[in-house]
Amino acid sequence: MSEKFQTPKGTRDFLPEEMIKRDYIIDILKKTFENFGFDPFETPAFENFELLARKGGGGDTIKDQIYYFKDKSDRELGLRFDLTVPMTRVVANNPQLPKPFKRYCIGRVWRYEEIRKDRFREFWQCDVDTVGSDSMQADAEILAVAVKALENLGFKKFVINLNNRKILSGLIELIQVPKEKRFDIFRAIDKLDKFGKESVKDELKTIGLSDEQISKLLKFVTLEGKPKSVLEDGERILKQTKIGLEGLKELKEIVDISKNYGFYDRIVIDFSLARGLDYYTGPIFEVIDTSGKNIGSLAGGGRYDELIELFGGRPTSATGISLGIERVTEVMNQEKMFDLPKTKVKVFVVNVNDRVKDETIKVTEKLRENNIPCQVDLMNRNLVKQLQYADSLGIPYAVIIGPEEIKKKIVKFRDMKKRKEVGMKLEDVIRKLKSI
Amino acid sequence: MSEKFQTPKGTRDFLPEEMIKRDYIIDILKKTFENFGFDPFETPAFENFELLARKGGGGDTIKDQIYYFKDKSDRELGLRFDLTVPMTRVVANNPQLPKPFKRYCIGRVWRYEEIRKDRFREFWQCDVDTVGSDSMQADAEILAVAVKALENLGFKKFVINLNNRKILSGLIELIQVPKEKRFDIFRAIDKLDKFGKESVKDELKTIGLSDEQISKLLKFVTLEGKPKSVLEDGERILKQTKIGLEGLKELKEIVDISKNYGFYDRIVIDFSLARGLDYYTGPIFEVIDTSGKNIGSLAGGGRYDELIELFGGRPTSATGISLGIERVTEVMNQEKMFDLPKTKVKVFVVNVNDRVKDETIKVTEKLRENNIPCQVDLMNRNLVKQLQYADSLGIPYAVIIGPEEIKKKIVKFRDMKKRKEVGMKLEDVIRKLKSI
Repeated sequence: MSEKFQTPKGTRDFLPEEMIKRDYIIDILKKTFENFGFDPFETPAFENFELLARKGGGGDTIKDQIYYFKDKSDRELGLRFDLTVPMTRVVANNPQLPKPFKRYCIGRVWRYEEIRKDRFREFWQCDVDTVGSDSMQADAEILAVAVKALENLGFKKFVINLNNRKILSGLIELIQVPKEKRFDIFRAIDKLDKFGKESVKDELKTIGLSDEQISKLLKFVTLEGKPKSVLEDGERILKQTKIGLEGLKELKEIVDISKNYGFYDRIVIDFSLARGLDYYTGPIFEVIDTSGKNIGSLAGGGRYDELIELFGGRPTSATGISLGIERVTEVMNQEKMFDLPKTKVKVFVVNVNDRVKDETIKVTEKLRENNIPCQVDLMNRNLVKQLQYADSLGIPYAVIIGPEEIKKKIVKFRDMKKRKEVGMKLEDVIRKLKSI
Repeated sequence: MSEKFQTPKGTRDFLPEEMIKRDYIIDILKKTFENFGFDPFETPAFENFELLARKGGGGDTIKDQIYYFKDKSDRELGLRFDLTVPMTRVVANNPQLPKPFKRYCIGRVWRYEEIRKDRFREFWQCDVDTVGSDSMQADAEILAVAVKALENLGFKKFVINLNNRKILSGLIELIQVPKEKRFDIFRAIDKLDKFGKESVKDELKTIGLSDEQISKLLKFVTLEGKPKSVLEDGERILKQTKIGLEGLKELKEIVDISKNYGFYDRIVIDFSLARGLDYYTGPIFEVIDTSGKNIGSLAGGGRYDELIELFGGRPTSATGISLGIERVTEVMNQEKMFDLPKTKVKVFVVNVNDRVKDETIKVTEKLRENNIPCQVDLMNRNLVKQLQYADSLGIPYAVIIGPEEIKKKIVKFRDMKKRKEVGMKLEDVIRKLKSI
């Protein structure tokens, strides 16, 4: 035997059992997104490196985090690390696209990162974005579609943490910190949930904030309560900053509309939410599983009104959310939310011996015409071995056709789990299987 | 404005209109494959370079034809150039998989090739394979599923060219050419259809065949007629070669079974069919569009009983076919076989003014609950502009809700193409749209 080969580090194969789960998730997501008026869309697996590098502010630092390569003509390329950058490229290059441009994309992305549990170098992302609308209804709808998608997958306990980059900017103004420090501060307060107050205090000190500034800041970002009251508390504190008030007004709008979209009860205003990415300009959000197992974020996104211009397009507002399919799958596995077979095959057609072979193929063809997924013996095995194979694959039913059955114009219909057989007309078997 | 970026050479974006076509094709293929008892399956986009290089007999020559790169730990990797090699790796590494292992895979592959019309460097492939059965019924079923898939897509005029590597080996034995020249000869006769007899004669001469050998060879590979008679003619010529007779017997079995699988009328025995790949060991086949537009191959494949062992597995027989999704799409475009909308959105919900906004969102939500894909205005446009937008996207219907309609508890239902409106209850609109 020759040497065996493994999958490259950080990548996985999807054998049927896992792929059936993935297909199930993707089907539900597609349907939900399409119901909300988003159309399907795809871009190449790799992009020009220069495009990928621009998002991180340009420069080569990103090379260490992506799969970078050159083609034979020395063009610099890289595997896409998200679905947002390619989409903004397309929008920038196609100003004729009617706005709003509502699209979804479900596909693989690649990041050269440290591998942890559930953290792969090749993974699926799923993005829904509305481009060209600056209405808060667009953001509300993005949240509505994410909520509905998760509900359709069977998720029950989750909340939407909601903040606005403008509120954070107002806060920076209020405590009078130089603007260039704002991203460092955002990143620090974003860790509040994870590492606690003391750790964040230390980090803010290191950034150069005074005790007074830190205390003001932490007081604000830890405001809690019903959405309306948190927003009112926020208003009292930020009343001197124009940008801060604008951000609060936007969130108020989203909260108001959320009642009609049916996700009001899931909203948690969280002024400590900052989200790592620098390109957000308005509302930011994160969907958090609250079933108590410390699973964290299921989806996250926000408004990014400046990104399309950065990639050469006209100034175009945009908002969107990204669902983590790996995380969703992991939770669904953990919580036993999948009720799926190991195989798509519903029936195994047993071939008792060579004399009835023609008949078994005909029966198989009839089942297939009726959209009943089935297999027929291809190994010339005996009856027992054929049934063992069907069992090992998890095929729920078998149809057995012997010379006796052919004479009587029936088939034996076997429930593989119950190990019970009944003689039935093929038409009745088909009717039964179609109703299951 | 910043600089714009294009897609990398040889790759394309799929805007909604194109992606809707692709999704349509993939849905039909998946359903057909599953009906035939094949389960879904996926592998990573890239593989260890050593694995990819082994198929071409090992060595670096393949580097020029694929996207090759190293990760940060200097591991040699390459984007997959087909779906067969990754699948054989999985089978080799998982000897516990019940046999037959029937899987399909629809995904992207990448080849660094010259770009021509309909020849891209990133393209979708679609493979169906049965692993572990050496029965000719497995090959027949592979042909049956390919035929049914094409029929389900709307293809009518196409044939299956059928040959067997064993027949070609018998032929080589018969005309007494050294075995190591066989692949050169296979490649030469494979060009018969494309370049004609004279060109192939020249090539065979260059390979070193005598006039007598060439004449014998060409006489054999140009045998024509009904499957049965071509196979009988073949038998007369190859009767002294054991391997040749074995190949003929296998084809006879496929032809016999094809009657039950319903594709007998599509079979053309073509002894000049060789298929480029070196790894085929038994029946080989190609599905050819015969609608007269010179479109060529829609699908191709064959039996490869030695490949899994080559990749470190136990000796395992296998047979499969690969459909070219790009070619299929191209033909379907050309022949106007798509009858698809430009958007998945069925209804645009018009928001006449801010006072009815709550109501429009509620109507939108109601439509979505009933799985009717819809959009609602997100731009605060006036009525005319909203309808123009719906038109530009190709949305077939609109629902208009004004203060008057709310009072009457109806909506205006507009056929966008006919430009006609009727007042209706929302429930009736939903019923109507569900029936369309």
